[in-house]
Amino acid sequence: MDENFGVRLQEHLRERGPLCVGIDPSKEMIESWGRGDNVESLEYFSLAVLEAVLDTVAVIKPQVAFFERFGSEGVRVLERVMSDARDAHVMIVADAKRGDVGSTNVGYAQAWLDDASPLRSDAVTASPYLGVESLAPMLDKAQASGRGVFVLTATSNAEGRMIQDARTRDNETVEDFVLGAVRARNANFDGLGPFGAVLGATRDRPSFDLTTLRGPFLVPGVGFQGATPENVARIFDRCTPGTVLPSVSRAILQAGPERSALRDAARRWRDDLSEVLT
Amino acid sequence: MDENFGVRLQEHLRERGPLCVGIDPSKEMIESWGRGDNVESLEYFSLAVLEAVLDTVAVIKPQVAFFERFGSEGVRVLERVMSDARDAHVMIVADAKRGDVGSTNVGYAQAWLDDASPLRSDAVTASPYLGVESLAPMLDKAQASGRGVFVLTATSNAEGRMIQDARTRDNETVEDFVLGAVRARNANFDGLGPFGAVLGATRDRPSFDLTTLRGPFLVPGVGFQGATPENVARIFDRCTPGTVLPSVSRAILQAGPERSALRDAARRWRDDLSEVLT
Repeated sequence: MDENFGVRLQEHLRERGPLCVGIDPSKEMIESWGRGDNVESLEYFSLAVLEAVLDTVAVIKPQVAFFERFGSEGVRVLERVMSDARDAHVMIVADAKRGDVGSTNVGYAQAWLDDASPLRSDAVTASPYLGVESLAPMLDKAQASGRGVFVLTATSNAEGRMIQDARTRDNETVEDFVLGAVRARNANFDGLGPFGAVLGATRDRPSFDLTTLRGPFLVPGVGFQGATPENVARIFDRCTPGTVLPSVSRAILQAGPERSALRDAARRWRDDLSEVLT
Repeated sequence: MDENFGVRLQEHLRERGPLCVGIDPSKEMIESWGRGDNVESLEYFSLAVLEAVLDTVAVIKPQVAFFERFGSEGVRVLERVMSDARDAHVMIVADAKRGDVGSTNVGYAQAWLDDASPLRSDAVTASPYLGVESLAPMLDKAQASGRGVFVLTATSNAEGRMIQDARTRDNETVEDFVLGAVRARNANFDGLGPFGAVLGATRDRPSFDLTTLRGPFLVPGVGFQGATPENVARIFDRCTPGTVLPSVSRAILQAGPERSALRDAARRWRDDLSEVLT
């Protein structure tokens, strides 16, 4: 595989279309499929979604919280889902939103970005509340292992604005500060870099010039949370194709448990997103 | 047990003294004990520390990152450590720094704060980057189950200042905004509430009046990161005894692997902290 996650992702999206399906086996979602909420259902649900969409999507984004709620047994299911996704050449973004002081982030880097870990992913999401620099062990490990990190900038929920819109001592918003730090890390790469930003689609265009990031965008908020493919196209309108990865979860998952209905829903979203993003 | 974590913690600290030992089985720390870095050593290290300090400390704070790096097998070790701590009546703060949108935080609440979870803890640390209100499912679950949540406010590392010192639209710092939101949640309780703040000791006194939080403080940065018991006493000088929980990790762990040396180190820290905090 190519050494650089950004380039690898771009090629993958050009080939398969720009859709990431979020695998969110919440209690609510599992019960909506008519099953009891237990670790067997967690596995059934997750593998059913993966199997239904693996020919259609470029990336899956398992939401780690919904596996973690069953402790080590839930994490074992996540390992199984990841292993099957790797076999099917579907890329994996672990939605973990990890972040701590630097010495602790060494541990998270080992968990999600190390070749030897059963939880190794193509990329992981990270939270910058303790500072973007504190994420360096994750960014360094990603770079060394051909993987990526998507750093939270502007999330898709309204409650996030109070902190993300706050102004740093340099009078830029926290969101812009984080985007700028990610851009700076990508500047060392010739083409697209491996460091991305999470930027929700449920909002207006940011003031930051997104075309300068030189890394990929993970874009939640599409579907159930209200954003449309047109919203995504408007926010990222001059960004290079293959750098924008919209993620759809509930709007696809609720089509289950029938595999064909899940597959059809994923195809519709992929086609709608392909149309506006290329 | 008492329904309210804040009251429970306060009684526990008055009885046992104000020391939390961080269980941080990093690769570096395990190797400093002369062992290879693998899941067997993870278990050996963590149980050795617990056994050595369980008569001395009030609380253990396992750093989840260092268990997660071994995937489900590492999480299983964490479950074992927690189970043994419960048997020994040592309280557990899971240092997980979790945080996501509200619907996802339902999953983290189930993982760390639900009676049925193998990872259930007396309290968990949470990150507010997606908004304090988005943490509501964790706060609600904690309140309902007699557990607590420590929300990150001002962390012990310098890189965190850029975001934590940023100013919200109400012209307060992010740190003060988060402290105010935690205080507001505690206002519904007669005495001490179950919602706390993580506030590093490697800093000056904050402008926020800490005596008004009406919840506990988890205080990292003591020992290896540079803060002394006197620093802790100065920052929290008018706070009620039993509401301040300093956490020491490397300065104690590096005394191992001999149990007696670990125990002696923990006792010294407990005594030094007791002296200045009561």
